[in-house]
Amino acid sequence: MRKTASTTAPVHPLLAERWSPRGFDQAHELGDDNLTALLEAARWAPSAQNSQPWRFLVTRRGEPAHGRLFATLASGNQAWAGAASALILAVARTADDDGRPRPWALYDTGQAVAALVTQAQADGLAVHQMGGFDSAAARAEFGLDDTLTPVVVIAIGRRDAAAELPEPLAARETAPRTRHPISDLLLPARTARTPAAA
Amino acid sequence: MRKTASTTAPVHPLLAERWSPRGFDQAHELGDDNLTALLEAARWAPSAQNSQPWRFLVTRRGEPAHGRLFATLASGNQAWAGAASALILAVARTADDDGRPRPWALYDTGQAVAALVTQAQADGLAVHQMGGFDSAAARAEFGLDDTLTPVVVIAIGRRDAAAELPEPLAARETAPRTRHPISDLLLPARTARTPAAA
Repeated sequence: MRKTASTTAPVHPLLAERWSPRGFDQAHELGDDNLTALLEAARWAPSAQNSQPWRFLVTRRGEPAHGRLFATLASGNQAWAGAASALILAVARTADDDGRPRPWALYDTGQAVAALVTQAQADGLAVHQMGGFDSAAARAEFGLDDTLTPVVVIAIGRRDAAAELPEPLAARETAPRTRHPISDLLLPARTARTPAAA
Repeated sequence: MRKTASTTAPVHPLLAERWSPRGFDQAHELGDDNLTALLEAARWAPSAQNSQPWRFLVTRRGEPAHGRLFATLASGNQAWAGAASALILAVARTADDDGRPRPWALYDTGQAVAALVTQAQADGLAVHQMGGFDSAAARAEFGLDDTLTPVVVIAIGRRDAAAELPEPLAARETAPRTRHPISDLLLPARTARTPAAA
């Protein structure tokens, strides 16, 4: 089954066919070349003043660090994410060494991970990002200082449509993808002084 | 000249060939179909709990709102961004109606804009995002409430390599793209209790 996005104008297949599965092939291993391509894609993302605030803690299935990162996941994510070939903790450098905040760090890290996801899609890999993890535990476990903010754990691997998943996850795996209509995303260009008509 | 990224593993051309120019074709107009494709690409980005926190205030050159958004740009950006076919204010819904923060809103908005940028690249358009604008002025001008955070202004159009730009912008237009090496982006998997060897 392909869960291609339903769009009102043609969108590039790398974007339209991307979705976030939970069924991963637990025999697939992420090779060094694949991993490097993913990181290169992230590396070349744009950022405010070219500040490049994204950081990655990369763990592959079978490595000791993989188990430590897996242990920070919410139980609902532990139900499936261990089968992915790699778990990567995406971290934003949200402050300078002197503590001054970097307002675009989270935004730019999102751009970098989006590039990584597009590269994965191009390489026949699937990605599922998780906000459901214990950020404080990850910070403590890996000794992250206060300038760094853990953002998501990224599961990467080869999709396995036949992977066994508990409900309700199995049902979600085949459910249609949904989004707000474009009209809900558009802000009106009204002025603060001239409220829009009802 | 192509400013293709120098990568240690092959990266998809839509990512490797993307960069942020300042020379735009002031005769190019962004058609409705192009605009819809860009918004569709953003719309289908992933987000925490499918919360879709991205919002867009779209203005095209010649529209009254375009001038109002242009007026919020830093002078260094006003030197070139008016030639782009459209200026879009990207906004993140960083809080719920009850004021509860949405911790992934900025990150997810970065992912949505990255998808928009990839679609633009696929459509032969160029994008340059700007953090250099007066966020408070944009908020006031367009009546954005406290749940919304203006993030960047996105210039979109057709690249014009022959566009006249003042220095130092002209020199930057042909300067090589640079990034930190991948090794600088990787966090070690050391534990907080076992400091890495020097």
